[in-house]
Amino acid sequence: MATIDKKLIKKLREITGLGIMDCKKALIQTSGDLEKAIEILRKKGASVAAKRFDKETAEGVVLSYIHPGNKIGVLVELNCETDFVASTEDVKKFAQDLALHIAAMKPLYLVPEDIDPKFLEHEKEIFKEQLADSGKPENILNKIIDGKLKKLYSDICLLEQPFVKNDQKTIKQALEDLIGKTGENIKIKRFARFQIGA
Amino acid sequence: MATIDKKLIKKLREITGLGIMDCKKALIQTSGDLEKAIEILRKKGASVAAKRFDKETAEGVVLSYIHPGNKIGVLVELNCETDFVASTEDVKKFAQDLALHIAAMKPLYLVPEDIDPKFLEHEKEIFKEQLADSGKPENILNKIIDGKLKKLYSDICLLEQPFVKNDQKTIKQALEDLIGKTGENIKIKRFARFQIGA
Repeated sequence: MATIDKKLIKKLREITGLGIMDCKKALIQTSGDLEKAIEILRKKGASVAAKRFDKETAEGVVLSYIHPGNKIGVLVELNCETDFVASTEDVKKFAQDLALHIAAMKPLYLVPEDIDPKFLEHEKEIFKEQLADSGKPENILNKIIDGKLKKLYSDICLLEQPFVKNDQKTIKQALEDLIGKTGENIKIKRFARFQIGA
Repeated sequence: MATIDKKLIKKLREITGLGIMDCKKALIQTSGDLEKAIEILRKKGASVAAKRFDKETAEGVVLSYIHPGNKIGVLVELNCETDFVASTEDVKKFAQDLALHIAAMKPLYLVPEDIDPKFLEHEKEIFKEQLADSGKPENILNKIIDGKLKKLYSDICLLEQPFVKNDQKTIKQALEDLIGKTGENIKIKRFARFQIGA
């Protein structure tokens, strides 16, 4: 019989409110997959709120910046490995600078991979049309388009933007500096930027 | 010849940096559609940053709530018709209460229409499986499922949730009270809720 981590059973009991045996059985059935086990128990009638249950996989900080006048606001989440590092002034200062940066620089995405593919296709097409009558050979055209794409990324992707506090560095490079300083992996997990009328 | 609003031409000039005639021509070509006109001018080479340009269609406030400890943060935007109402204490107070509510009640969506259709289908299926052996007639089953859906909406949709400050009212009803008090249409435009590890 498969052995199931007791912590996992405890977690499942907390989420579903069911007994040890039911939880253990469901976990054995799903080879220890918590989400699938919840699924099985819900179908049998366990009342689990359809809310996200906390995964508790990370430490970090959430910080906001509201521009005076309350017309622009930013929320940003940094993740790191320990609460110790999350509580340091270095990390909090960086998160605060980042929120200010986002307010000013209006990034739309975190990284180029997040860009809506339709939007990206559309931008590429516009670049091509701009160059349609240039008479340049294709390999040169492709290089120009690559350059325009890089420019686009540094306009709209947070990690590629030049940091407002020091525009000799991108946000990515400033983050790498912070990682070096704290000795811990730190990620910008997500951000939101709301502006009235935009 | 079509007449084009001078304000629209001015706006297009600001966005593209091009002359009056180019902008007017593009707007005539698109029957006054600003976004399409920008498109045409970009293809001709106008350098328009691929950022959202401000639409300036609304007034409102953006407010945040950061739970002590910096593990949970909320950003919320309310829209209204005039800056006068946006600046009133009533509106600011409601926005602040709302941010606190969101921190506590973890809504995932603004309204039921925003729920991911796949997720909704999946939940409906679970409800059906829970009732599969009940032996109840179909019209009763449908009523039970409707009831379960309403419960789901009031769990995860902000406007349907009971307001933490007064659980005799939903957020929607509290908002209607505010609309009555200020005499102006007010909308919750959007919110973000970040929680470390969730």
